Amino acid sequence: MRVLVVGSVALDTVKTPFGEVEDALGGSAVYFSAAARYFAPVDVVGVVGEDFPMAELDFLRAGSVNLEGVRTAKGRTFRWSGVYGSDINERETLDTQLNVFTDFHPELPESYRDAPYVFLANIDPTLQLDVLDQVRAPKRVVCDTMNFWIEGKREVLLKVLKRTHIVMLNEGEIRQLVGESNLIKASKKVLNLGPEVVVVKKGEHGALMVSKDAFFFAPAYPTEHVFDPTGAGDSFAGGFVGYLAQADDFGEEHLRRAVIYGSVMASFNVERFSMERLKNLEEKEIEERFQTFREMVRITA
Amino acid sequence: MRVLVVGSVALDTVKTPFGEVEDALGGSAVYFSAAARYFAPVDVVGVVGEDFPMAELDFLRAGSVNLEGVRTAKGRTFRWSGVYGSDINERETLDTQLNVFTDFHPELPESYRDAPYVFLANIDPTLQLDVLDQVRAPKRVVCDTMNFWIEGKREVLLKVLKRTHIVMLNEGEIRQLVGESNLIKASKKVLNLGPEVVVVKKGEHGALMVSKDAFFFAPAYPTEHVFDPTGAGDSFAGGFVGYLAQADDFGEEHLRRAVIYGSVMASFNVERFSMERLKNLEEKEIEERFQTFREMVRITA
Repeated sequence: MRVLVVGSVALDTVKTPFGEVEDALGGSAVYFSAAARYFAPVDVVGVVGEDFPMAELDFLRAGSVNLEGVRTAKGRTFRWSGVYGSDINERETLDTQLNVFTDFHPELPESYRDAPYVFLANIDPTLQLDVLDQVRAPKRVVCDTMNFWIEGKREVLLKVLKRTHIVMLNEGEIRQLVGESNLIKASKKVLNLGPEVVVVKKGEHGALMVSKDAFFFAPAYPTEHVFDPTGAGDSFAGGFVGYLAQADDFGEEHLRRAVIYGSVMASFNVERFSMERLKNLEEKEIEERFQTFREMVRITA
Repeated sequence: MRVLVVGSVALDTVKTPFGEVEDALGGSAVYFSAAARYFAPVDVVGVVGEDFPMAELDFLRAGSVNLEGVRTAKGRTFRWSGVYGSDINERETLDTQLNVFTDFHPELPESYRDAPYVFLANIDPTLQLDVLDQVRAPKRVVCDTMNFWIEGKREVLLKVLKRTHIVMLNEGEIRQLVGESNLIKASKKVLNLGPEVVVVKKGEHGALMVSKDAFFFAPAYPTEHVFDPTGAGDSFAGGFVGYLAQADDFGEEHLRRAVIYGSVMASFNVERFSMERLKNLEEKEIEERFQTFREMVRITA
């Protein structure tokens, strides 16, 4: 089954303790697609500026990603710049230039509107709602967001959540959204807002998936060298939604495997800058790492 | 197989958002024994003051815990007082009165010296070393410690670690011990100090076990109401060491199960103040919760 993603296509300037890159390919829609395409074909909606080096997306095009919905607008491409400290889990945003994103209104090509699986990456919830109004009957809508929208666009975000099946949040975001510090209670409160599944991304502590009937804990990959965490959440989402679309089944067993595939893709992504690692993965590597995750939680009777 | 524990027997005054208790039974050796006795007989070494209400330990005596090594000394019992805030994971120590613990020198009854399994609870590493000098040929030594000793008695602690098979640390302690923020790298550095296994206790994020050849990740129990976290680490150790002693096998498969039994006992402990929950558990409850833990990480092929 196909996956539709709406999100940013960006040029990132990133500094970590291990190096730096300038104007490297980034953005939520790009990280997502780069990961999801290993599992299912992807349709992207987004916008770039006239300065965008389109050839850098060739690897996506070659890998069953449809970029028909990526429009080129007058002006410069969205840019983000950040620095990670010696504790690689903490980052500081140095600069965000919305540029062409300021006037972005997602317009779905006709061929996108029957998308069975939809990922609303972390963008203005007004735009997320725009997209939902244009798709006809998605089987599953998965949504990401961030502190900025939870605080500034709460009402619209709540409307999006009412139409979302699966929401992805990090620990800070979920606590902010429902005002509850206990993660389990907080997750249950989110289930009352609409979604039937909450995935809490906990970085080096793994991920927690909560639904009405079940809890699932997924470990983080024991990475000794987190090189650049940028895009970890979006590549996680790519593995997660991509796997669900491939299975075309969102029962508990598949949701659990989806969380692990999400963790697998995020673990590859953080090993290098930008798309360097997600560009050329082999299916065998993905499967091996999936097995490593299984082994990490195996308990014999 | 029997388990030997050396640690504190204390009277705790604790305040949480859900209530408070004064001079309630506490101490690392007590929390440990209260949990471990469900798996194996326990020999305790410790000291109490003349004011100590010995009858409060009756439930341990009745439950295969040998208190022959608990001496009564002139003076008052060790007291600890703390308060937990609305984020139950953060606590502030209000008062620590060492009292009879100041001049404590552990003396093992002859019958304790062939202990096959030894748990050195969080006390002055000089005393931990004292105990190790008195046991003849333990199969496994498990050690706990804290920031205070890592900073103030580093050299002695390193001597203890050289003679320790399994060390338990929380995230802050392990980072402090080896000066490394990446948990995986930090754990490997600890393996170079002597222990063959490191268990990192991560509270609401579960536990991570690292050995030369394997990683094991255990979830935390999805507790909605952490009532009082006091003793969580020691009851974890009780379930962990108790299970190993029961199995009398410390191969990887048993170590993994031990981590889960540790998590099980800690999850019960935090549901009530003091020993209230650990006092009267049924084997069936323990087994059911063990199965819940398995279910939380189950991934089908």
